[in-house]
Amino acid sequence: MIKTKLDPSIVAATLTTCLNKGVAPIALHEPSFRGNEWLFVKDCLDTGWVSSVGKYVDKFEQELAAFTGVKRAVAVVNGTASLQIAFEVAGVCPGDEVLVPDLTFVATTSAVKHCGANPHFVDISVTSLGVDPQKLREGLEKIGRQTPEGLFNLQTGKKISALVVVHTFGHPAEMDELAEICSEFKLTLVEDAAESIGSYYKGQHTGNVGLVSTLSFNGNKTITTGGGGAILTNDARIGEIAKHITTTAKIPHRWKFAHDRVGYNFRMPNINAALGCAQLESLPLLLSKKRDLAARYQIAFEEIPGVKFLAEPKYGKSNYWLNTLILDEDQAQLRDPILELTNNQGIQTRPAWEPMHTLPMYADCQRMDVSNSISMASRIINIPSSPCLTPDV
Amino acid sequence: MIKTKLDPSIVAATLTTCLNKGVAPIALHEPSFRGNEWLFVKDCLDTGWVSSVGKYVDKFEQELAAFTGVKRAVAVVNGTASLQIAFEVAGVCPGDEVLVPDLTFVATTSAVKHCGANPHFVDISVTSLGVDPQKLREGLEKIGRQTPEGLFNLQTGKKISALVVVHTFGHPAEMDELAEICSEFKLTLVEDAAESIGSYYKGQHTGNVGLVSTLSFNGNKTITTGGGGAILTNDARIGEIAKHITTTAKIPHRWKFAHDRVGYNFRMPNINAALGCAQLESLPLLLSKKRDLAARYQIAFEEIPGVKFLAEPKYGKSNYWLNTLILDEDQAQLRDPILELTNNQGIQTRPAWEPMHTLPMYADCQRMDVSNSISMASRIINIPSSPCLTPDV
Repeated sequence: MIKTKLDPSIVAATLTTCLNKGVAPIALHEPSFRGNEWLFVKDCLDTGWVSSVGKYVDKFEQELAAFTGVKRAVAVVNGTASLQIAFEVAGVCPGDEVLVPDLTFVATTSAVKHCGANPHFVDISVTSLGVDPQKLREGLEKIGRQTPEGLFNLQTGKKISALVVVHTFGHPAEMDELAEICSEFKLTLVEDAAESIGSYYKGQHTGNVGLVSTLSFNGNKTITTGGGGAILTNDARIGEIAKHITTTAKIPHRWKFAHDRVGYNFRMPNINAALGCAQLESLPLLLSKKRDLAARYQIAFEEIPGVKFLAEPKYGKSNYWLNTLILDEDQAQLRDPILELTNNQGIQTRPAWEPMHTLPMYADCQRMDVSNSISMASRIINIPSSPCLTPDV
Repeated sequence: MIKTKLDPSIVAATLTTCLNKGVAPIALHEPSFRGNEWLFVKDCLDTGWVSSVGKYVDKFEQELAAFTGVKRAVAVVNGTASLQIAFEVAGVCPGDEVLVPDLTFVATTSAVKHCGANPHFVDISVTSLGVDPQKLREGLEKIGRQTPEGLFNLQTGKKISALVVVHTFGHPAEMDELAEICSEFKLTLVEDAAESIGSYYKGQHTGNVGLVSTLSFNGNKTITTGGGGAILTNDARIGEIAKHITTTAKIPHRWKFAHDRVGYNFRMPNINAALGCAQLESLPLLLSKKRDLAARYQIAFEEIPGVKFLAEPKYGKSNYWLNTLILDEDQAQLRDPILELTNNQGIQTRPAWEPMHTLPMYADCQRMDVSNSISMASRIINIPSSPCLTPDV
């Protein structure tokens, strides 16, 4: 069924062809529990170790560090909490500005606010959907003033202390270029790898370039712990601080309850970590199934006019967390009709997030030119991406 | 074995007599999973609903509201998060002062800091261990200035916006007197009921007097969800706001991701709520077993000189979350030897928390006279309190 002009029915039909599991409803992303999930969770209940102490938290942290190749992983309650702590341990202070991509899940931005800092929106690349290095450099040259105390915003007088890069929908951002800008402008680099477990930048797992990085294990992610997240770092001292302040900053003692700084109760409960240990065992298989599905989408949508399937960048490997269609600029008006038709057919699809600068509570934040973000937000459609959509071999 | 003078061995021997389960190690408080825990958790794994959506969160919130008698309960990731949100929805603003008991778990205080507000320590009662109404009134009369905008601290110039009351170790605080002071001085009353599920003040479950209240379901609490907490309120509008801001402040829509204020990712995952639903079913039995144990302690320690078992106040009913011994003033030097001996014997005991004003990060906070807190901290010993220490009938 090849047409010369895009319409919603052709998108719906192409999706159905790719989705071997033909029975609606088909979720955007559902978890897969086919390994040791039961065994490990039941072990927690049988031993009574469900909470803040127990072997699975340590095991999960060690296995996460091994999988991602970082020195230290700290398991926490969710991705938002991991970002808040990442900013804090990266030295972001209340009142600072943090550069945040304009097109991301709201947590990247709210975590900046949770630190008492100010989001400053930067544009995204139309190819990687990560922060656009060229536009970032131009923006910083326009508004930045280098001082011995760091980079300051000429327009607000505030310190710009960090850049957070998001590996959007699992596609690795242009890290070499972004790291070079951070080094040149004296910005701390934080990677929000919430969406990119199993994604690699030039052969290295995402999250290894930033001073601190974060993961999410929400139920819609590639692997899940119910709710959960992690802080990743190659700096052992920062890893220690992250662990300490996410566990109430308690001073170790046999019975005494003393604490040495303002801490958070962000530790991941043992029962959730048990789920995570089982999920990590399955991760290679899940990633492989997700790549199979992405390959099917890629081939199928090559034939369709007016829309492109977003393939991984040449320099990296994507986990294809959420498979993504991008409508041509002159087809943007079809976004909502396509969402309407596919969701009515029980195929869950969704647009990208609303650009951050359009949300009422962030409308007054500083921003650079974010025209790519606006354009992509009007043209992106995420399509079903669960590993279960690829049958077992 | 009645002696006329207290020594550590007599305390250890008396504990052993009360603890029918003679085999060390005996934990301070361990959870009990003997109901539908595995059934409900397995249901989450089997259906894939482990995370932010699923029936157990709604069920847990409804059953919590029914059990405690409040209009609305909102389940969140832990007690600290519930306190932070309670302060925010109660109208505490950055820069305000919040009155906090000097002897409490550090989370009561850190949650104030997480709101950008300033803890101001007040003293505790030597009988209830809750906030001392008489000393609070005297303190406020000394430093408070009433204005049309509320109560201000004459010494700091800051607004004092709220009082948080803790039902320490499960014993209900003196709510009538404290509520009257809040009304007279125009303070918002928040109840930290983290330790007091199943505790009643004059026949009403704790958490019903404050504008907002909080619970904790950490692994050491009477019932647990792994990690978890809840916000309780009798104000429907405040309940709605609490639910909204703990779930990223997302505007409900079939596919659009828009948010209308700075929100938090504090929702309790479904798998943790499933555990909570099963625990709530067992709660009446667990409370009854805990009361049996407390009764045994009370009788046994009546005979022992130099130390008292803390009984519930006449006006209320305690869940006896952590059973508490209080050494006579002239026996305080025995606290550490008793802790040493009992812990060496595998009977887990612990002192109260370090008074808040002695922690380095809170040493500069405002405080009233906190002499009761200092005295009690030097004399309190918490003793094993698990429901499993009472055998089944």
